[in-house]
Amino acid sequence: MTQSLTSHQPVRSWVRSANDHPDFSLLNLPLGVFRVAGESPRGGVAIGDSVLDLRVAVDAGLFVEVEQGLAAKAAALAAGSQLNAFFALGKHARVQFRQALLALLEEGSVYQVRMEALGEALLRPMSLCEMLLPARIGDYTDFYVGINHAMNVGKLFRPDNPLLPNYKYVPIGYHGRASTIAVSGATFHRPKGQTLPAGQTVPVFGPSKKLDFELELGIWIGSGNQVGQAIPISEAADHIGGFCLLNDWSARDVQAWEYQPLGPFLSKSFATTVSPWIISPEALAPFRKAQPSRPEGDPEPLDYLLDHKDQAEGAYDIELEVLLLTERMAAEGMEPEVICRSNTLNMYWTVAQMVTHHSVNGCQLQSGDLFGSGTLSGKEEGEFGSLLELTHGGKEALQLANGERRTFLEDGDVIVLRARCHAEGGGSIGFGECRGKVLPAC
Amino acid sequence: MTQSLTSHQPVRSWVRSANDHPDFSLLNLPLGVFRVAGESPRGGVAIGDSVLDLRVAVDAGLFVEVEQGLAAKAAALAAGSQLNAFFALGKHARVQFRQALLALLEEGSVYQVRMEALGEALLRPMSLCEMLLPARIGDYTDFYVGINHAMNVGKLFRPDNPLLPNYKYVPIGYHGRASTIAVSGATFHRPKGQTLPAGQTVPVFGPSKKLDFELELGIWIGSGNQVGQAIPISEAADHIGGFCLLNDWSARDVQAWEYQPLGPFLSKSFATTVSPWIISPEALAPFRKAQPSRPEGDPEPLDYLLDHKDQAEGAYDIELEVLLLTERMAAEGMEPEVICRSNTLNMYWTVAQMVTHHSVNGCQLQSGDLFGSGTLSGKEEGEFGSLLELTHGGKEALQLANGERRTFLEDGDVIVLRARCHAEGGGSIGFGECRGKVLPAC
Repeated sequence: MTQSLTSHQPVRSWVRSANDHPDFSLLNLPLGVFRVAGESPRGGVAIGDSVLDLRVAVDAGLFVEVEQGLAAKAAALAAGSQLNAFFALGKHARVQFRQALLALLEEGSVYQVRMEALGEALLRPMSLCEMLLPARIGDYTDFYVGINHAMNVGKLFRPDNPLLPNYKYVPIGYHGRASTIAVSGATFHRPKGQTLPAGQTVPVFGPSKKLDFELELGIWIGSGNQVGQAIPISEAADHIGGFCLLNDWSARDVQAWEYQPLGPFLSKSFATTVSPWIISPEALAPFRKAQPSRPEGDPEPLDYLLDHKDQAEGAYDIELEVLLLTERMAAEGMEPEVICRSNTLNMYWTVAQMVTHHSVNGCQLQSGDLFGSGTLSGKEEGEFGSLLELTHGGKEALQLANGERRTFLEDGDVIVLRARCHAEGGGSIGFGECRGKVLPAC
Repeated sequence: MTQSLTSHQPVRSWVRSANDHPDFSLLNLPLGVFRVAGESPRGGVAIGDSVLDLRVAVDAGLFVEVEQGLAAKAAALAAGSQLNAFFALGKHARVQFRQALLALLEEGSVYQVRMEALGEALLRPMSLCEMLLPARIGDYTDFYVGINHAMNVGKLFRPDNPLLPNYKYVPIGYHGRASTIAVSGATFHRPKGQTLPAGQTVPVFGPSKKLDFELELGIWIGSGNQVGQAIPISEAADHIGGFCLLNDWSARDVQAWEYQPLGPFLSKSFATTVSPWIISPEALAPFRKAQPSRPEGDPEPLDYLLDHKDQAEGAYDIELEVLLLTERMAAEGMEPEVICRSNTLNMYWTVAQMVTHHSVNGCQLQSGDLFGSGTLSGKEEGEFGSLLELTHGGKEALQLANGERRTFLEDGDVIVLRARCHAEGGGSIGFGECRGKVLPAC
């Protein structure tokens, strides 16, 4: 297990709201794309309660003066309205860009006076920033590496044999729909589709009655590969551009009827929501862990998926939460209620293994492609990352504190995903919210 | 059944090679994107043995002079290096663009002298044009509407019950990989992956031993829809931008091991090949047919998929061929050998039904999205659109005229897809080739 002391130890910033900020201290410095009313979209960095406007910073020549190798080039690309070109620069430039940001923002920075003089033109109040999708997503792939979810869902269909024989060899994934991925804050209409009523043989058409969420880690691809050139497992981590939260909204009744033999389609493609900030691998480095040992009797990964460094530090210790805010709770001014607590340590495969497996047939990954991890459920009640699991297939309603009950999502429901990592020496970094709201079918 | 007399009757062109051309007479006028050595990519129209360079035509002011409403705007967008913006203009502009092309190219056109004066700068010899992918493909969806293929494949697994219960209600489809779609002429390396040897429980990793092709119709999306707004079946045909041929290369052994429970993934994502020319709905109008009657006992489509006009003319009578050229045949100067003859009338669902179904959950279709039809096999031997079917699951090798045999594809094999429609009054239109070659695994 590697601990990066530099980013592990809190560093104070002259941006006062950043210090002791649970999400956006100097430990984090995530990149996103935002828009302030009346201005064009551009890249920014979350710092405390503010967003550092990269276009203003670049125009002011700040990154040229810091002189961190590729930092100025990276900053110019990160200031754009889509971060694909920034992703394509790869790890080395990203690390230099991060070092330049630290030099600009740390307490005692020689740039403080000049930056403060730029005021809110440079440090935009986050509350005024509308966050946008950070990149053009060429292809979106949804994996299935949350083994407890696979087990829980499998048990609903095959109580004695919940996991299929390929699960412990293949990082199972499938292609998803890129066009309907939206950033946190998006609403969507309850999807309509074909479903087969219980005991019937003829399907009906109408709004889904089993609308669900799925708690997932999102992975942005940084530098890509050429068609036909697989990414070796030893290099896979270098192709990861960053992380976010991802809600893979699912219509379970549509899914059950449509998914054989080619997999989920319309039951997923109506909406996917991601959190706006791209949490960098460097910010997450202190929270890397050894890949949890496979239970006795489980096979070793095949050679192409096995790397000692990846096994030693390829997992992440990220605490996850799902919160539900019903329309009634919102009307009564209540806070969202936590309905699930989980952790990314529930992944059976590492992100590097997902990258390598995806490319091993020669498939090209491109900068700005997005992966979902699959639902990251824990093993215990209260740790399940979907209503399908929390309600045992819809059989046992979830009881909310205000007396409401839920088997599946109702119109007006809001689901919020949150993620945070707590450093051993104090301090934390957060992902920011992944929030979405269900509107009635239209 | 509607017959468009205008485009049904051959019209002669002053471009002499176009007259009686089996593929690219005035009946067709397909759009594509090409590059001539040393020049930038741009849009062009196939006409006889030439490609009309739309950038040169636009710069010469030809489309402004023809004055066909939106034709000049459409031509300017069609002259670009990607046709997404042209697709987004929709049907009305495309029809006017086609009328303008006819006015420019028909025998007796008042523009003939000026156009001939531009010589090979305007009419590029097709043999010098490298064809490119015509659009940026946001999302690629592969359907499964070839019912004979579904039946043939189903029989290999479930002899007594080959079709799953949802097949006759749901136009089954799944999301595919956009990044590895390449244009005709592309080569690709045999994919590596996990496969489960017969009788074993532990998979092995290596090059696929069951590499196959799939004969499909490709459909380009023209104008799209907004997220959340389904496309009614009565309007679906207007969202089709054009057609091509599509080879959905498949690694059957990888597919068999990986596809449960979420569908095909790496067994397909290594390569997909499309023909370069976009055959317009207007060119295909004379070849529309009534949707073949469903066998007695089959259910009616659900209401949202049912439209009388679509039932009356939503099918297409397009003759399809698959040809194989082995390395030995090529070395001996032999022509490719036909191994399958089929027809798009083997589709159980119309293209309009595919469009409506795909969007019925609110999923956004975007200009330049691509659909595959699924494998279009006929019912008889010799009409099967994949080696899986032609060899009965690899059990009976295909016997080639030169004595070679094939169960699955070997390194060096070339597969060519062709499509042609024959007009009742004489004349034909063709799709041009969809050609791809298997290279050894790397």
